[in-house]
Amino acid sequence: MPKPIEYADASPQVRAVYDDIKQSRGVPDVNNFWKYLAHDPATLKRTWESIKEIMAPGALDPLTKEMIYLAVSVTNGCGYCIASHTAAARKAGMSEAMFAEVMAVTGMANETNRLANGYRVPIDPMFQD
Amino acid sequence: MPKPIEYADASPQVRAVYDDIKQSRGVPDVNNFWKYLAHDPATLKRTWESIKEIMAPGALDPLTKEMIYLAVSVTNGCGYCIASHTAAARKAGMSEAMFAEVMAVTGMANETNRLANGYRVPIDPMFQD
Amino acid sequence: MPKPIEYADASPQVRAVYDDIKQSRGVPDVNNFWKYLAHDPATLKRTWESIKEIMAPGALDPLTKEMIYLAVSVTNGCGYCIASHTAAARKAGMSEAMFAEVMAVTGMANETNRLANGYRVPIDPMFQD
Amino acid sequence: MPKPIEYADASPQVRAVYDDIKQSRGVPDVNNFWKYLAHDPATLKRTWESIKEIMAPGALDPLTKEMIYLAVSVTNGCGYCIASHTAAARKAGMSEAMFAEVMAVTGMANETNRLANGYRVPIDPMFQD
Amino acid sequence: MPKPIEYADASPQVRAVYDDIKQSRGVPDVNNFWKYLAHDPATLKRTWESIKEIMAPGALDPLTKEMIYLAVSVTNGCGYCIASHTAAARKAGMSEAMFAEVMAVTGMANETNRLANGYRVPIDPMFQD
Amino acid sequence: MPKPIEYADASPQVRAVYDDIKQSRGVPDVNNFWKYLAHDPATLKRTWESIKEIMAPGALDPLTKEMIYLAVSVTNGCGYCIASHTAAARKAGMSEAMFAEVMAVTGMANETNRLANGYRVPIDPMFQD
Repeated sequence: MPKPIEYADASPQVRAVYDDIKQSRGVPDVNNFWKYLAHDPATLKRTWESIKEIMAPGALDPLTKEMIYLAVSVTNGCGYCIASHTAAARKAGMSEAMFAEVMAVTGMANETNRLANGYRVPIDPMFQD
Repeated sequence: MPKPIEYADASPQVRAVYDDIKQSRGVPDVNNFWKYLAHDPATLKRTWESIKEIMAPGALDPLTKEMIYLAVSVTNGCGYCIASHTAAARKAGMSEAMFAEVMAVTGMANETNRLANGYRVPIDPMFQD
Repeated sequence: MPKPIEYADASPQVRAVYDDIKQSRGVPDVNNFWKYLAHDPATLKRTWESIKEIMAPGALDPLTKEMIYLAVSVTNGCGYCIASHTAAARKAGMSEAMFAEVMAVTGMANETNRLANGYRVPIDPMFQD
Repeated sequence: MPKPIEYADASPQVRAVYDDIKQSRGVPDVNNFWKYLAHDPATLKRTWESIKEIMAPGALDPLTKEMIYLAVSVTNGCGYCIASHTAAARKAGMSEAMFAEVMAVTGMANETNRLANGYRVPIDPMFQD
Repeated sequence: MPKPIEYADASPQVRAVYDDIKQSRGVPDVNNFWKYLAHDPATLKRTWESIKEIMAPGALDPLTKEMIYLAVSVTNGCGYCIASHTAAARKAGMSEAMFAEVMAVTGMANETNRLANGYRVPIDPMFQD
Repeated sequence: MPKPIEYADASPQVRAVYDDIKQSRGVPDVNNFWKYLAHDPATLKRTWESIKEIMAPGALDPLTKEMIYLAVSVTNGCGYCIASHTAAARKAGMSEAMFAEVMAVTGMANETNRLANGYRVPIDPMFQD
């Protein structure tokens, strides 16, 4: 089973990514996800650069993006992702009431997705536009 | 295969739900999802009342909720749901740029969910709080 | 894209499976699923024999098994499977009211699965037994 | 991370739901799922009322409904849900032999769902009815 | 909760499957998956015979098959399956670099699957052949 | 609903990506996936560069990578992805026999993933290494 790669044991290429994560997020150390991806420096670098670009403020604010990330992780049942993105969303300003509403919407969407599948509902012409 | 139940053919109980949907949303007719659920008046009523309660403005605004709904539907690959909730999110104010960012975050979350699964990343103690 | 293999064009090995399906189910022809699997005679044979064994009356009756099959297909969003197993369940005796309840339970299970994931609910000791 | 809300610490609104669950199920205490949902009293109430309505005897008996619920939870890989609904199905009368058949059908459905996807099997006209 | 059935406690029918697994794989004991399936001897036998047939060298070598098995298990988030098939793939010759590429491809496929869903991309005529 | 962006109507930034795709793959035009992603030039560029890097020959050959991509797409039920990656895998050398084995392994993995979930099989110590 893979083991996490700590900063002290990391290659210069990996350390450069760790340094950028720590500086961008203002954290003293990177979390386990990055320490495991470090076994594949190319994926570590590509994933971090993609996340940094995607999660930056744009047409959507960082909090909204983190709550969408959480909703997807909850739908997929990814334990690590639920834990880390719940923390990230809280850090970005998600209150307990907001968390509760993300869960309510995510649960309802998963329910109605199946009702639409089972009843084989055809797409309304107005939704084709 | 079920057929949609139009207002003219609906029972008083079903018509009451259709009327509430049309009034609440300011639309002339309900979309197919409701016309198929109408085969089960209890589920039609329960589902509409739950959605009306969950999607109402609260700690999150309706647009944010619709974008979360869309992200879940895209993750599940529910064609009808993607079409109807993309339309609903647009109606609630989602711009093309916002749609593109919802897709980018949804795609990235689905990717990193699998990287976390495959590398069997243990949850950091700080995410347990 | 694969094309269906009709009886007239099938090998003796494939025809033997088609004949068994037609006889077991009392149908004049096999449905498309088998005509496509026929491109791989080993998988065709293994899949048919497994289904015949699994779906036979046992501790559960065939109707209950078909409704479980349908619930899984709806959860996975498999269009072909939803269509074919809705038909199979109806043939086995599923009424409109029973179909509606299968959908309601399937939808609710998909909702609560996500609420349990999102709230990270630990398993109660009594459920470990 | 959320903590369970025990009866002694619950608001009157939450206690009312706990009391109804305990009375309806004849149990001395509610399981963790409800103690976590209690962080969102509206979702706690709505979810319990929906489950009570959906899982009540109707065209399908409670045991059949619990086995469908279990099949969906197994398909989604929801650990908590698998544990709690296996227990609920056993309490409703599921024998070891019935459990084994639910698993066999669930596994087979997940396999054939993918074979149908991969071979891109078109829906037979007879399944469109 | 089911308990594993050890060789010493197994029926002759179950022992025969255990013996075949041990001999085929050259292992001193079978892993937990089989010891739990043993509660249902018919499923134990059918599953083992199917896996033995499917995973045998054919048009694809055993290593390629194990990596595909791992990619599916990672996509489904099945913890046991990820652990056992990572070990099986390593035993079949998967290097750390190969594991890293399986993860990168699996992650990317899960991302682009959602982008294709969300943008509702129609299938190009050339892919219909 | 988004429309595809053809080369003639594309911005210089989008054309540069289209040109690189056409040159890298030796095709006269890009497929629909790219023409839809072009609505978000940043995602178009990032996705193409990631795919080009991930799918390049490495520890795994391009054919093996395409078959893994197909197995994931089949598991997720992404119609567009199944069609495009079946074509890509064929172009990379996948024979009918190889396709059949990818399907057989993918189907079996989806089945055993659920059996492992349902029987709640604990991970063997030897798989923790």
